[in-house]
Amino acid sequence: MSRRLGIVGATGAVGKELLGILEEREFPCEEVRLYASAASLGKTAVFRGQELKMQELGPNCFAGLDTAFFSAGGELSREYVPQAVEQGAVAIDNSSAFRLDPEVPLVVPEWNAETLAAQPRIVANPNCSTIIMVMAIAALHRELGIRRVNAVTYQAASGAGQRALEELRAASRAALAGEAFEAKVLSHDIAFNLLARIDRFGADGYTGEEDKMLNETRKILASPEMQVEATCVRVPVERCHSMSLSLDLSSPCSVPRARELLSSAPGLLLQDSPEDDLYPQPADRAGTDAVAVGRIRESRCYPGGLVLWAVGDQLRKGAALNAVQIAEELL
Amino acid sequence: MSRRLGIVGATGAVGKELLGILEEREFPCEEVRLYASAASLGKTAVFRGQELKMQELGPNCFAGLDTAFFSAGGELSREYVPQAVEQGAVAIDNSSAFRLDPEVPLVVPEWNAETLAAQPRIVANPNCSTIIMVMAIAALHRELGIRRVNAVTYQAASGAGQRALEELRAASRAALAGEAFEAKVLSHDIAFNLLARIDRFGADGYTGEEDKMLNETRKILASPEMQVEATCVRVPVERCHSMSLSLDLSSPCSVPRARELLSSAPGLLLQDSPEDDLYPQPADRAGTDAVAVGRIRESRCYPGGLVLWAVGDQLRKGAALNAVQIAEELL
Repeated sequence: MSRRLGIVGATGAVGKELLGILEEREFPCEEVRLYASAASLGKTAVFRGQELKMQELGPNCFAGLDTAFFSAGGELSREYVPQAVEQGAVAIDNSSAFRLDPEVPLVVPEWNAETLAAQPRIVANPNCSTIIMVMAIAALHRELGIRRVNAVTYQAASGAGQRALEELRAASRAALAGEAFEAKVLSHDIAFNLLARIDRFGADGYTGEEDKMLNETRKILASPEMQVEATCVRVPVERCHSMSLSLDLSSPCSVPRARELLSSAPGLLLQDSPEDDLYPQPADRAGTDAVAVGRIRESRCYPGGLVLWAVGDQLRKGAALNAVQIAEELL
Repeated sequence: MSRRLGIVGATGAVGKELLGILEEREFPCEEVRLYASAASLGKTAVFRGQELKMQELGPNCFAGLDTAFFSAGGELSREYVPQAVEQGAVAIDNSSAFRLDPEVPLVVPEWNAETLAAQPRIVANPNCSTIIMVMAIAALHRELGIRRVNAVTYQAASGAGQRALEELRAASRAALAGEAFEAKVLSHDIAFNLLARIDRFGADGYTGEEDKMLNETRKILASPEMQVEATCVRVPVERCHSMSLSLDLSSPCSVPRARELLSSAPGLLLQDSPEDDLYPQPADRAGTDAVAVGRIRESRCYPGGLVLWAVGDQLRKGAALNAVQIAEELL
């Protein structure tokens, strides 16, 4: 079952990662088309030793494709995902455009691949922080029932795209040299600083990112009653999102039992040895597939509850890898 | 009432700040003696235009002092604080050595200055993250009663001392140049990374820093029932500790009421205008006295509760400023 694939947003942080993961995982494909904005048309990318040129989006550009990955923002997805579907492709969309559409499955394949059984034409890839949190908590939820999560994130600059990552580096260089720097991609200078706003503010003071962690988690885990209170913060880290998760459980759980449940959960790496000073770090996770969990301890706020520290590469499991896993499930 | 003062640990990050704050606030003193380790004996510091030489600790070195500030670690405090007291000085100790001693007041002057009324010979200055949290929540606690706090911190490198700050800079330079770097002060390379352990691990998986935020807050606020579940994380920020605080309240509180209570709290700066993209940032707080609070919203986990984002300069209000304020109260 060899496939013809398209990647929209191929020069972006997630798009580049997608191409690399398709090659690494030997995804069965006979053609890959890369789409980018007009500004990137001269650029190329290498896939299985072949140089591929960027193409522009336009009328009938998806004709002949089996699967189109979208990772170029919500506006572009709203316009082109329906066209890709009309031209015969299945769209796997990394933007937020369709995630809460009741007709569209929102998928973390380890935990709700069954929503793909009906062979949908559009599949939504969840928000990166949401995927990492779901990977860290789903095994506990299935076994014990999670009622409430206090989630506090430490999100890498590359979560805001390739240009934000470059801005982190440029801003850090300027700060170390004692030079002034004006932020252009992020809202403020991120060098040695923290920005406690990701996405737009809503009327209730929560940001779009914080709402995603609530609404998308409820949909993925089919648990509309679960409360997720998130505080999402951009940190001067290049890659990998980290988070503290405090869990209120329906059935109490000891630390050894939690370690047992998490060590056998798919896609999860237990890094929890205080005696060896071992706990998840973004520097260790960058470029790897598994979400790491550690610092497991009894909650001091929720009797019988737990506190965890989770770190995952948001460009891989938080975006590109998850999208490729969805495509693999659909094969 | 002019005083003779001593500063133990005068070349450290907090010691330097202490000297600057004494000068800024025109603290009435006729003599300042600076104590440092043997390695720093050649060094000097300037106070009110006068060059002061570092002295070594030794027999009878505190004789004649009214007040001795200690900021050179727990071991040294345990040895020399009793000597300073014996030689007639009041010791204001920034280490953790005496903080939980029932005979020693643990003071954030805005909130429990009354514990100084008995003119104690030793006063403990709380942990830096604890002071910043107490400043952010005490007004709400007094008015509404806080039952539980989920505290998740983002702590600056300088919280681990001057050498850790220098290591952050050196490590960041190396990372940007693509060069290897070996951490010597912090336990792992902090450049563009996060270290989710501060202080030692306890048997229950919580760290010393996380225990301090629980035990010291209970003592300062005289609220032994309050639960504080902390996750403390070192971040690649030079200066200022930041934290997300989720509060379970005995009496429900709206966001406007919280803003009203916090805007009139001493030493607090309300920075909470989503419409202007205004929220506290460590880069803005560095070198300033007030703890800033923003991102105030209704808790999604605790009915009637609140979520806050607080940032404060941990070398000033989190350490040196608080110690000087204690000395001012004692005058």
